Amino acid sequence: MLEIKVPSHEKVLEHGLAYSLFALWPAFLAFFTSFTTILVIWVHHHLIFTQVRKTATPLFYWNGLLLLVVTFVPFPTGLLAEYLLNPEAKVAASLYTGNFLAISVVFHGLWRYVSKSEELASSTISSTPWVAARITRDYRLATLLYLVAFGLSFISEIAGISSCLLLAIFFALRGWPTKEAG
Amino acid sequence: MLEIKVPSHEKVLEHGLAYSLFALWPAFLAFFTSFTTILVIWVHHHLIFTQVRKTATPLFYWNGLLLLVVTFVPFPTGLLAEYLLNPEAKVAASLYTGNFLAISVVFHGLWRYVSKSEELASSTISSTPWVAARITRDYRLATLLYLVAFGLSFISEIAGISSCLLLAIFFALRGWPTKEAG
Amino acid sequence: MLEIKVPSHEKVLEHGLAYSLFALWPAFLAFFTSFTTILVIWVHHHLIFTQVRKTATPLFYWNGLLLLVVTFVPFPTGLLAEYLLNPEAKVAASLYTGNFLAISVVFHGLWRYVSKSEELASSTISSTPWVAARITRDYRLATLLYLVAFGLSFISEIAGISSCLLLAIFFALRGWPTKEAG
Amino acid sequence: MLEIKVPSHEKVLEHGLAYSLFALWPAFLAFFTSFTTILVIWVHHHLIFTQVRKTATPLFYWNGLLLLVVTFVPFPTGLLAEYLLNPEAKVAASLYTGNFLAISVVFHGLWRYVSKSEELASSTISSTPWVAARITRDYRLATLLYLVAFGLSFISEIAGISSCLLLAIFFALRGWPTKEAG
Repeated sequence: MLEIKVPSHEKVLEHGLAYSLFALWPAFLAFFTSFTTILVIWVHHHLIFTQVRKTATPLFYWNGLLLLVVTFVPFPTGLLAEYLLNPEAKVAASLYTGNFLAISVVFHGLWRYVSKSEELASSTISSTPWVAARITRDYRLATLLYLVAFGLSFISEIAGISSCLLLAIFFALRGWPTKEAG
Repeated sequence: MLEIKVPSHEKVLEHGLAYSLFALWPAFLAFFTSFTTILVIWVHHHLIFTQVRKTATPLFYWNGLLLLVVTFVPFPTGLLAEYLLNPEAKVAASLYTGNFLAISVVFHGLWRYVSKSEELASSTISSTPWVAARITRDYRLATLLYLVAFGLSFISEIAGISSCLLLAIFFALRGWPTKEAG
Repeated sequence: MLEIKVPSHEKVLEHGLAYSLFALWPAFLAFFTSFTTILVIWVHHHLIFTQVRKTATPLFYWNGLLLLVVTFVPFPTGLLAEYLLNPEAKVAASLYTGNFLAISVVFHGLWRYVSKSEELASSTISSTPWVAARITRDYRLATLLYLVAFGLSFISEIAGISSCLLLAIFFALRGWPTKEAG
Repeated sequence: MLEIKVPSHEKVLEHGLAYSLFALWPAFLAFFTSFTTILVIWVHHHLIFTQVRKTATPLFYWNGLLLLVVTFVPFPTGLLAEYLLNPEAKVAASLYTGNFLAISVVFHGLWRYVSKSEELASSTISSTPWVAARITRDYRLATLLYLVAFGLSFISEIAGISSCLLLAIFFALRGWPTKEAG
């Protein structure tokens, strides 16, 4: 899926292999940011579904939508890797941050649907409302911060991408309250 | 599998990145239509196999055939993405809709084989014949509508592809009667 | 994995899209032959392992070797798709048939190891020796026939590839004797 | 993931198909070395996790880090395949061996974390300390040998890569002591 292209022979002939690899840093940055984000998404998806007691048709649509926006990630990742040093880098960066904003919106919706449904939510969520409330606050915050990252990418592509990277690391390190709630 | 190619530097140099991305709309359309169709196929495949009590050798051939026509999807998807704006777009569109027609024919065959076999069909299907009858009607209708989409693609590529997209959304939203039959 | 490349714009401009697609027939043939072969391998791998009672270290090496030769298949498939109409097509065809010969040799070895081991073989195999004997005969025949296909590919590339396709279809249709032995 | 590129028509026209394939030997070497290494990693990952009694948050980060360095392997593999015969091959070889060094460091860390934790380690590890000690020695040795391979790749690219290949084969053949400890 996420793929970094080997530098072309023309580039290596002109600038040397070491420099050509160094010049690939936008590709490494995009790869690393997308990798971390997808890992975090995958873990959160798992965490949400440990709180789901049974499946329902709307859950299928939420999951289908999530799969769609996640399957799309390699395209803006490749675009950013190719065009981060281009004068029009802001276009690539805003598609990239916009993709992550879309993911966080879908995640938020998926979680709201699960936590509000009497039928679907696990006993942990039903019996300890502060747990659901904290997760809801986290996802609302995530959506807001990805909106900021999206906005930033129109001003500075590096600011937008760095925000996405920091957000992924932040949500990787941030715990999930159901363990504490036991 | 489904992949959207990053626009080339020559194109971006000539038209700008924003326009080059906009010009990729056939790729986005093809990606989205194929994504939705494959998702629907995957769900229906799962639904059919919840109605199967045991496996049989002919089922293996039906599944092998289904896997073959589904594995082929990325090729007409890429072809359409590349040539939808070409004067010969109808060739690409008819291969694309033809691939989906083939999938619906195989699906129809797979379902007929499962539902007609005394041995394979689940108790839900055996005890409530109207359920099997409704699913059979749905798949017959699907094959017919994909045949129409295939025919349309020889007249207008956009009409053919739009039909495929609408059909995928229609079958995503349409329920499956075994739940109602309990 | 198995991928068919969309024809280039230069080719389409020169010959038209319909003809360019038609000229891809070596790619379709290679795709279809490799697809069928890999499907048959996957089913036979599953069938062998239903006859295995426990794992052992040498089994890991046999499986590793099998995975290696199967993972290699996309390369000769792509090579054949690209160079079947080239004057040197025999080189591509012999690598292709040679890859399948290697797979059949590894399969034969894997099966011999499983069936000869007192510890590993299932009760079906231990109690009905004619079942094991028939499977052994089948795999010996397969290796021999793939050797013939490999030899043929040095004389005629089409003869070599057609043999591989026919062999895959033959082994797809041929039953597995453990079911009859019950 | 690991992919060998079909030689271009220009190369085949100039040198013939047989020679062009022969000239791909760096790609075959890189493919085979990476394949064997990833297989060994996968088996060792499985072996470590048979010794883990429950999951913990730090394990998730160790696994995430391991996944990151393993997901990166196709890039240096492709780079080496493309540039092993280039005057600057040492740059490609040191990225390649450096990637494997990073994997062995992460593996070492993952294992240390598992074996030192009272909570996580299985009864085999807790009750037979020599088993854990031998695995720890093996992983320390592996890290050291990959460091040597990394160093060698700055002197001779072939020496560096051959070391990686020999190390993968060595660790594939070397047993795991928990079976002996029963």
